[in-house]
Amino acid sequence: MSLDHNTRILIVGLGLMGGSYARALTDAGYAVSALDTNEKSISFALREGIIQNGGTAPTKDFVGNADLVIFALYPHIFIEWLRQYQHLLRPGAILTDVTGVKALPLREIGKFLRPDVEFIAAHPMAGREVYGVENSTAAIFQGANFIVVPTKENTPAAVSLCRELGKTLGFARVSELSPEEHDEMIGFVSQLTHCIAVALMTCKDNQHLVDYTGDSFRDLTRIARINDAMWSELFLDNKEALLREMDLFIGEMQTLREALNADDRETLREKMRLSTARRALFDKK
Amino acid sequence: MSLDHNTRILIVGLGLMGGSYARALTDAGYAVSALDTNEKSISFALREGIIQNGGTAPTKDFVGNADLVIFALYPHIFIEWLRQYQHLLRPGAILTDVTGVKALPLREIGKFLRPDVEFIAAHPMAGREVYGVENSTAAIFQGANFIVVPTKENTPAAVSLCRELGKTLGFARVSELSPEEHDEMIGFVSQLTHCIAVALMTCKDNQHLVDYTGDSFRDLTRIARINDAMWSELFLDNKEALLREMDLFIGEMQTLREALNADDRETLREKMRLSTARRALFDKK
Repeated sequence: MSLDHNTRILIVGLGLMGGSYARALTDAGYAVSALDTNEKSISFALREGIIQNGGTAPTKDFVGNADLVIFALYPHIFIEWLRQYQHLLRPGAILTDVTGVKALPLREIGKFLRPDVEFIAAHPMAGREVYGVENSTAAIFQGANFIVVPTKENTPAAVSLCRELGKTLGFARVSELSPEEHDEMIGFVSQLTHCIAVALMTCKDNQHLVDYTGDSFRDLTRIARINDAMWSELFLDNKEALLREMDLFIGEMQTLREALNADDRETLREKMRLSTARRALFDKK
Repeated sequence: MSLDHNTRILIVGLGLMGGSYARALTDAGYAVSALDTNEKSISFALREGIIQNGGTAPTKDFVGNADLVIFALYPHIFIEWLRQYQHLLRPGAILTDVTGVKALPLREIGKFLRPDVEFIAAHPMAGREVYGVENSTAAIFQGANFIVVPTKENTPAAVSLCRELGKTLGFARVSELSPEEHDEMIGFVSQLTHCIAVALMTCKDNQHLVDYTGDSFRDLTRIARINDAMWSELFLDNKEALLREMDLFIGEMQTLREALNADDRETLREKMRLSTARRALFDKK
């Protein structure tokens, strides 16, 4: 199976991400259906013309009709949905997701998934700090990364279909990582940075410093305003990888602390020079 | 003494900050002289008309003529300069500085300063990521904080003169902190944040992640390009305060780590809610 205009696409979960997928795929000429337990989200999407069909309950007709099913749900809801309703899927259906962690859902789903359907994991690295289909827009995919996360069980056809999906959605770059590489990467560049921002805000009462904060402090804490339900779940679902990244970072902070405590100027300068050289690479992108 | 157009101002150290002071004070109608060991900096400033007189060596005529002497040097060079050349100062001269740490220079200078001159410490919280008088501009003071850091030995007249200086330079806000309050504040909002940015870049080889970094990682590491000579000195000169801030932050990271390790979702969510509430205060400014 390859992605063409005969592919019948079903999106399960019509929030910000599901809605943005629906918009991009409808704009690209596909027939998109959607399921969401919130009736308002479905009627909004139908009214806006970003889906052709919508429903609030999984039925054989609705689910069994889809060639490609995209799950845009929190990880645990996604896993539970599959457990309950996978019998409704048509044989040969390809399933994909938008989940920000990979090892855990792959492990869980691997325990029970029907052998006649195939799940190919993906992580669209895009988002907004607002929620709901009402705020959805395909513009968030511009300039962003789409990561396909295959396992040894995946077929080349499913991997290729998922890569086409990323391109069709409008992502600037489509790449592949293993589940372990993905979770390490996301633990480091996203989850660890959110941990740090939170710890900077909570490590002491800092309200009396608000008049003195410059750009540095504001930059490091911009992401400290955080959806606690979603981020605690993401942290816990990527626990092993995030613990490793936290330990690396805490260990490095302790190294800097010991160098300072010992008046070891040369170690401090070496770290600063390494930091400066590495950061320069990130500016070129 | 109060700041008026008869006040003869000498700036010692004509780099980015000294040059920016010179521009702002010349624009405000003051007669500004400058000393710098680099002849090119002096001739550039004379050619640009941002100083009236300039020299490369401290002489009795040059130094003894000034009512207000502004030191825009690294802390240790500032202290050494005073030790060697304070005999050239005129009786009654007021001295101030731009140094980013306060307890250490105040302690050192207090040991030997002539009793017939007065040092009032100040910290202009402004800067650019480039160096030298060639890059100086008074625009960096707009919207920024000017902090006067008096001790019990300072006279009200010197404190008031220094506050006037901050306003004349164009700072948005002029405030006062004790040396200890200042060093705690700067240890937290500036030095700790630079430590964190450096540790994020050096805690592991992250070059393979450059394609996947989004805004969060870039925001947290923007300041990881760092002048290692200057920042290692600032860290060491504020060692006690910075160690306290690092310990608070490292301890909080460990608290988050233990909550994650124990699957303690509620502690994670509580920290995230506190972080979100506190950060909202910083957005209002």
